[in-house]
Amino acid sequence: MKCLNLFILSLLLIASSHAQKLMGFTDTNATKQIDWEKQFDAQLNAHNLDTWMQFLTSHPHHVGSPQDKANAEYMANLFKQWGYQTEIVSYDVLFPTPLTRSLELLGSNPYKAKLEEATLKEDRTSGQKSEQLPSYNAYSADGDVTAQLIFVNRGTPADYEELDRMGIDVKGKIVIAKYGGSWRGIKPKVAAEHGAVGCIIYSDPADDGYVQGDVYPEGAYRPKDGVQRGSVMDMPVYPGDPLTPGVGATKDAKRLDRSEAVTIMKIPVLPISYEDALPLLQSLHGPVAPSSWRGGLPITYHVGPSTDNVHLKLKFNWDLKPLYNVIAKLSGIEFPDEWIIRGNHHDGWVNGAEDPISGMVAELEEARAIGELVKKGYKLKRTLVYCAWDGEEPSLLGSTEWSEDHQEELRKKAVLYLNTDSNSRGFIGASGSHTLEPFFNEIADAVIDPQTGVSIQERKYASTLVNADKASRTKLIGNKNIKLGALGAGSDWSGFLQHLGIASLNLGFGGEGDGGEYHSIYDSYDHYIRFGDPGFQYGVALSKTAGRVMMRMANADVLPFDVNIFYKTVNDYVTELKTLLDNTRTQTDEENNMIRDSLFDLAKDPTKTYHAPKIKDAVPFLNFSDLENEMMQMKNRTEEFQKQYGDATRLPVEKQNEMNQILYQIERSLINENGLPRRAWYKHEIYAPGYYTGYGVKTLPGIREAIEQRNWKEAQDNIEIVSKTIDQYTLQVQKAMGVMINKS
Amino acid sequence: MKCLNLFILSLLLIASSHAQKLMGFTDTNATKQIDWEKQFDAQLNAHNLDTWMQFLTSHPHHVGSPQDKANAEYMANLFKQWGYQTEIVSYDVLFPTPLTRSLELLGSNPYKAKLEEATLKEDRTSGQKSEQLPSYNAYSADGDVTAQLIFVNRGTPADYEELDRMGIDVKGKIVIAKYGGSWRGIKPKVAAEHGAVGCIIYSDPADDGYVQGDVYPEGAYRPKDGVQRGSVMDMPVYPGDPLTPGVGATKDAKRLDRSEAVTIMKIPVLPISYEDALPLLQSLHGPVAPSSWRGGLPITYHVGPSTDNVHLKLKFNWDLKPLYNVIAKLSGIEFPDEWIIRGNHHDGWVNGAEDPISGMVAELEEARAIGELVKKGYKLKRTLVYCAWDGEEPSLLGSTEWSEDHQEELRKKAVLYLNTDSNSRGFIGASGSHTLEPFFNEIADAVIDPQTGVSIQERKYASTLVNADKASRTKLIGNKNIKLGALGAGSDWSGFLQHLGIASLNLGFGGEGDGGEYHSIYDSYDHYIRFGDPGFQYGVALSKTAGRVMMRMANADVLPFDVNIFYKTVNDYVTELKTLLDNTRTQTDEENNMIRDSLFDLAKDPTKTYHAPKIKDAVPFLNFSDLENEMMQMKNRTEEFQKQYGDATRLPVEKQNEMNQILYQIERSLINENGLPRRAWYKHEIYAPGYYTGYGVKTLPGIREAIEQRNWKEAQDNIEIVSKTIDQYTLQVQKAMGVMINKS
Repeated sequence: MKCLNLFILSLLLIASSHAQKLMGFTDTNATKQIDWEKQFDAQLNAHNLDTWMQFLTSHPHHVGSPQDKANAEYMANLFKQWGYQTEIVSYDVLFPTPLTRSLELLGSNPYKAKLEEATLKEDRTSGQKSEQLPSYNAYSADGDVTAQLIFVNRGTPADYEELDRMGIDVKGKIVIAKYGGSWRGIKPKVAAEHGAVGCIIYSDPADDGYVQGDVYPEGAYRPKDGVQRGSVMDMPVYPGDPLTPGVGATKDAKRLDRSEAVTIMKIPVLPISYEDALPLLQSLHGPVAPSSWRGGLPITYHVGPSTDNVHLKLKFNWDLKPLYNVIAKLSGIEFPDEWIIRGNHHDGWVNGAEDPISGMVAELEEARAIGELVKKGYKLKRTLVYCAWDGEEPSLLGSTEWSEDHQEELRKKAVLYLNTDSNSRGFIGASGSHTLEPFFNEIADAVIDPQTGVSIQERKYASTLVNADKASRTKLIGNKNIKLGALGAGSDWSGFLQHLGIASLNLGFGGEGDGGEYHSIYDSYDHYIRFGDPGFQYGVALSKTAGRVMMRMANADVLPFDVNIFYKTVNDYVTELKTLLDNTRTQTDEENNMIRDSLFDLAKDPTKTYHAPKIKDAVPFLNFSDLENEMMQMKNRTEEFQKQYGDATRLPVEKQNEMNQILYQIERSLINENGLPRRAWYKHEIYAPGYYTGYGVKTLPGIREAIEQRNWKEAQDNIEIVSKTIDQYTLQVQKAMGVMINKS
Repeated sequence: MKCLNLFILSLLLIASSHAQKLMGFTDTNATKQIDWEKQFDAQLNAHNLDTWMQFLTSHPHHVGSPQDKANAEYMANLFKQWGYQTEIVSYDVLFPTPLTRSLELLGSNPYKAKLEEATLKEDRTSGQKSEQLPSYNAYSADGDVTAQLIFVNRGTPADYEELDRMGIDVKGKIVIAKYGGSWRGIKPKVAAEHGAVGCIIYSDPADDGYVQGDVYPEGAYRPKDGVQRGSVMDMPVYPGDPLTPGVGATKDAKRLDRSEAVTIMKIPVLPISYEDALPLLQSLHGPVAPSSWRGGLPITYHVGPSTDNVHLKLKFNWDLKPLYNVIAKLSGIEFPDEWIIRGNHHDGWVNGAEDPISGMVAELEEARAIGELVKKGYKLKRTLVYCAWDGEEPSLLGSTEWSEDHQEELRKKAVLYLNTDSNSRGFIGASGSHTLEPFFNEIADAVIDPQTGVSIQERKYASTLVNADKASRTKLIGNKNIKLGALGAGSDWSGFLQHLGIASLNLGFGGEGDGGEYHSIYDSYDHYIRFGDPGFQYGVALSKTAGRVMMRMANADVLPFDVNIFYKTVNDYVTELKTLLDNTRTQTDEENNMIRDSLFDLAKDPTKTYHAPKIKDAVPFLNFSDLENEMMQMKNRTEEFQKQYGDATRLPVEKQNEMNQILYQIERSLINENGLPRRAWYKHEIYAPGYYTGYGVKTLPGIREAIEQRNWKEAQDNIEIVSKTIDQYTLQVQKAMGVMINKS
């Protein structure tokens, strides 16, 4: 019996010792924190998410709509009820809406595009015709063009290289591109660079229509007349209001003339359904499209040109419209000037249930529950700032204008920006500043997946392993750490992370609730509760996950950043770049030799036009030594720091505070005030959206994009710039180390 | 000037020394041979190919048709005119033809399949309705079944594993499978093994219809009503007449009762068009098909089952039919009993222009030209045997029965079997016994590609390099050697290579003349001259290539086999098998652990049925040492032999003859008279068609398939069997070496 008692005792000790550990917390504070988190979980109620989604999606709620404003007021009211100091912050932004939309195929088989999504009896809001924004691409140019049509696949630079080889020139033509493969704004941008006069973007059924599953309302996928709206602003140059780059779009802000705004698209652009695309694609002649270009329509995809012309006419209302951000604060007691910021946008393209209200209602419930805890005595050390952004869809308008408007304050106070957006049933997805990876994983280990009862980390691990190919599985086994993805573009973190250097994290569940309603009138409450997250279980799981991020970051004794993990990840990026340069050199050399040996000409079908690629300039060796030396310093300092980090909770409080200040400001040292080449608004030297990918991130973008664009001088210059950035970072780590060692 | 003269002289010397080298020839004989080959090329006339194709494809010419017999007589006549001793050799074979074909979807949306290909005014033979074999699968069982339908993708064993995981059982059901992914006969075989009562096979437009290109007659691809006929006999067990395995189907051969013939399919099978498949596929409910299963029809592909039943009724005429092989000999002067055999089939499913007449007319022109050379004084050392096989389409009937009928003579006399079949514009493709690789490459370097003017080897190299992915390109650069593929099933070599152990080679051009006419009424002269090989340039190129194989093999002083290349390739196969076993062990171990950790259950969508795989038995280590020791011996002996081979042309003639006898018999040492497990007809220990892939070859099949089927005992037994086979081979090499060293 004694033996068994000892065994039970030791189990209890293990359990309790486990319970008392939280990154950045003393054991005592960890125990308290975990207790509050249990109460937090108990507060969360899926019914609230359902109720709020019904209200917030009851009418179209795009920028400038009555429901958009009503939603802001509704949420501000809730935040106030829950004890938050709340304000609605408004900006006046350029947000074009359509006046004229017309697309016709001329000639002997004429077709006039419907450009209209059907009302469905199974979808209660689909008939709100007078309130809906019609299908269009925001920030398209006005235009009236008539020209032959050419199919350009996804419309990426690589697709135009392929067109070149087929001897096809889009100059003076209208192009038609499939959605997907890049952010939509890249398609007209690259088309215009190649001389096209207009751009049509359509949703191919292979991507989110009947090829993927039964179409709405029978199933979740895009019906034949469903259209993806969306912005085509040149966001990789700068997001936010095109007329006020770098400053808040306040009433009296100094504004550019519209003609000076470089982010407005140069040619007219229109998104269409696959029903409308079919006659256009059928009108194309010329070469059969390469196999990877073909979609799911029951036709032979040809590249074109069409024999008959296409006529595209678009005209927009370019008035300024007001937007309404909700900003709700719960002040910290010890460090009111250290802000943990949380955001989700509230504007939708139409009724926007999944995008964005599914994430918004999870944020609201999380804020409500924390408000309840505070009423029960939970004490926040730092300030929580809950935001509901307006105008994300057009171009991250609300978050960008607010972060520009408050940049001085944010540079001083912001500890973290935590973003969410669409959320649905499935697996946790997480991207963000790599310093946050161990902190995030600790939370992912603590939150339970509602469908399986294991942690969301465990379930993600299961999914990663089961879906890995057999060859790469071996090295994944046993490693449950969720690697944070790097952040490119796609939601409201850009102003915080890439412009101001605030450590950021983006979270969301998904993978089991996919559908084809994205940016159409069918992204509705009725669709969401059938296919998105029936019962809002994953809404609650998101509240649990994001709520823990907020509460732990707010109350940690020592802020839970890991600079050594950051080092390791950046070091992987440096290795990637060296490999990229080496591979580019080998491949250039090989391909040039193949061109000289006429192998491309010999391999091609002589009955078809197919030009050999052109000889490329040889790839030089670049001098990485400064960067490598800085990386070595960074390695040593960050290892040293992180070894000692565990003891930092035992530092005197003033020392802790001093160190915390350094820690949360450390992401700021990654900012280069001159910004990236040709897009000074993007100042973060580690993360940026790709200039030619949009959503897709480019890490170490100054160097990486210069190599990809074969600009060797710029690549070398940027190696030096990044070296200095790394040096700045290491100095901050050293400074934090100094605080820690000099304990007294 | 002197200097220049010397330079020119040395160029001439290089040119002439180059010209005088041919593998297995003395320099003098090589010069003569190359001169004859020039005269051979000059003889070849594309117009002849065109004329003969017009006659041979003028009416449907399947086994039992009037045109089939007329074609045999027409060709026999030609061979006789050209100086060949010619006979028509007939066999009586079981070849079922359809009496009743009916396929209906029952229920509320009934559909009766048309099972009929349309007459096209652009295709002159498409309207020969009364003479055409209707669309069907030969050797399907008679049957009248009514059952629910299930979609099984390609119908391979892996597809049924996936169905199992989805909780779908085909027992008592009719399955519908896409053509492709395996030989068609595998689909009903595996379906029957899983308890299905019927099998429908359709041509998905993603594979050879509108997804690939414009459909016939506008383009080359399969129109909506086009059907692929074809045999579903279980050829991986044995090909040829099902009633006379192992012996020729002569008039008085001892025949099995039809009920004893294991190669006849157990369930009714019917091929259909995609027009007929569409309503059937639309009737399916149940899970959405996995993404790799989906085809090009404009529907959501579901797995099923269907709510409504499908009714399939098939009845065949099981009479014996006569077939007509043409066998034409040109006797060798020095070694009349050493035979170089050349074959192409002449029967088609309907008008069969590309398949098989495109290859047949190239063979005819080659035979004619050689006949002309002989009339001009060209002396053949060895005998040429030109064959035109009947009944290849049903199941390699003509070639198999003839090789079985003449097996004793062939074992003694056959030096080589050279096969061709369909031929079209593009790149040379070559597969065969690996001993022939250097010999074949010497020829590929000598034949000029008609479109580009470089050698067919150079053009193949260009294509390989241009189509390689960038990562694997590096190791291909500079290596122009065309690696011979290993031979599985697919045309008339099986009797020679896999049953009798006669070194074999299969040649054909292709890759630029593809279409969707395969085994339909649209494989016609009209289709071929537009899309196959306009102008018959590649027919002539095939005559040049195959003609050189025949003439060099006939007249070589020392037969041009390379046993060391054979060793190297087999050694690669052994390494592959060891890696396969190791990978199977690692993957089994990993997967079993994943099952025990419930990872499959955690990763799946709980709202869908998806069973975790079952725990598999652990993979043992096998003893490869005997095989490895034999391979080491083989390495040493073959290296030694091949080092000396160059000097063998200087051996006394009797020694050469003695060595040649050993060399051409050496492939016979790879025959194991007991045959492969469960299919004793296949006796070659290195090459066999896959039991579950059909066309797809399995090298070292006894070991490889045992590992794949997880039969460890059988794998170990077969390692020992192959070790003995390798030992036999090495002994023959040693014997040849003995002849060579002991020169006097």
